[in-house]
Amino acid sequence: MLVLSSPSGAGKTTISRKLLEQEADLHMSVSVTTRPMRKGEVEGRDYYFVSRAQFDAMVDADELLEHATVFENSYGTPAAPVEATLNAGEDVLFDVDWQGAQQMRTRRRSDIASVFILPPSTEELARRLTTRGTDTPEVVAKRMAKAADEISHYGEYDYVVVNDDVDRCLAEVRAILHAERVRADRLPGLADFVGGLTEVYRAP
Amino acid sequence: MLVLSSPSGAGKTTISRKLLEQEADLHMSVSVTTRPMRKGEVEGRDYYFVSRAQFDAMVDADELLEHATVFENSYGTPAAPVEATLNAGEDVLFDVDWQGAQQMRTRRRSDIASVFILPPSTEELARRLTTRGTDTPEVVAKRMAKAADEISHYGEYDYVVVNDDVDRCLAEVRAILHAERVRADRLPGLADFVGGLTEVYRAP
Repeated sequence: MLVLSSPSGAGKTTISRKLLEQEADLHMSVSVTTRPMRKGEVEGRDYYFVSRAQFDAMVDADELLEHATVFENSYGTPAAPVEATLNAGEDVLFDVDWQGAQQMRTRRRSDIASVFILPPSTEELARRLTTRGTDTPEVVAKRMAKAADEISHYGEYDYVVVNDDVDRCLAEVRAILHAERVRADRLPGLADFVGGLTEVYRAP
Repeated sequence: MLVLSSPSGAGKTTISRKLLEQEADLHMSVSVTTRPMRKGEVEGRDYYFVSRAQFDAMVDADELLEHATVFENSYGTPAAPVEATLNAGEDVLFDVDWQGAQQMRTRRRSDIASVFILPPSTEELARRLTTRGTDTPEVVAKRMAKAADEISHYGEYDYVVVNDDVDRCLAEVRAILHAERVRADRLPGLADFVGGLTEVYRAP
């Protein structure tokens, strides 16, 4: 389970998209949300769109790995598809905020590698934030307050990457994924394999 | 500090050589040894060749990160060049056995990523071990006993890679190096950087 978080303006969406393109065994977790579907969004690709009652029922049945309410809308990560992917020996990518990451760590700590993506510099961040355009000042102010809150939690993550260059940042996230896959505590069946090798050393 | 260990026949020497070729910021730690120089070996490249008295003096002065005696010869890792490389912001590769890795972990746990390299299969291992050729049966028996001892410690390492394909194994070790470089607890100056970014979010 690869968890990516970042404050606004760090370029996480681009990194996630490219990562999924290049890593065939990595699959995006699709969240459920109570937010209305926007133009261009596709059910099951961008989100599973559910009613408030459906969402609350999933929370009550403990069917979500994490959930949160942001700006009046609720979002959550359904556990069942994640389990299915992990059981098939493949990995899942999560785009969640610090609260989601915290809840997921509480539930399955050993399966998670978490990465916090930072924008490259104060100058570049200011440039990215001011060229976004169409939102109202109130929406921008809310997003900035959330970003300032988000970034204060960077220290809770296993890895921190600075997105000063998309290709370099992407390579770092891919390296994290590949390294985490060969962590000694993640390799099932290793004891049997080593036992077989040991026999060869004992009777070459 | 990237520590590689493996039992005989796993292909560690090839992996180390290729790793150093491809990673400009990674430098091999050169050990000191009391063993006589062999034909083709170069002082300061393969080892620093020292007398028993010189070696013992380094141990007494606590100048070695780890040291061990194998088949009557002593080997050790001098601390000073390692410190110089780390202080220059670059990394050091160590080719040590499980005892060396254990001693190094005791001394500077947070700076170390340790990787254990396994041979690909019992069949391939048997093939590699029988085609080595020139050693006497006694030397082979000693090496096998050491390998069986070595492999029993694989679980003490952070990562385990199986060398079933040199390029794939090399890519995994490189991923480990790159991932470890962006671990949150390894990035100096991050708090100041995040502080600057936070100001931008607070006053965009």
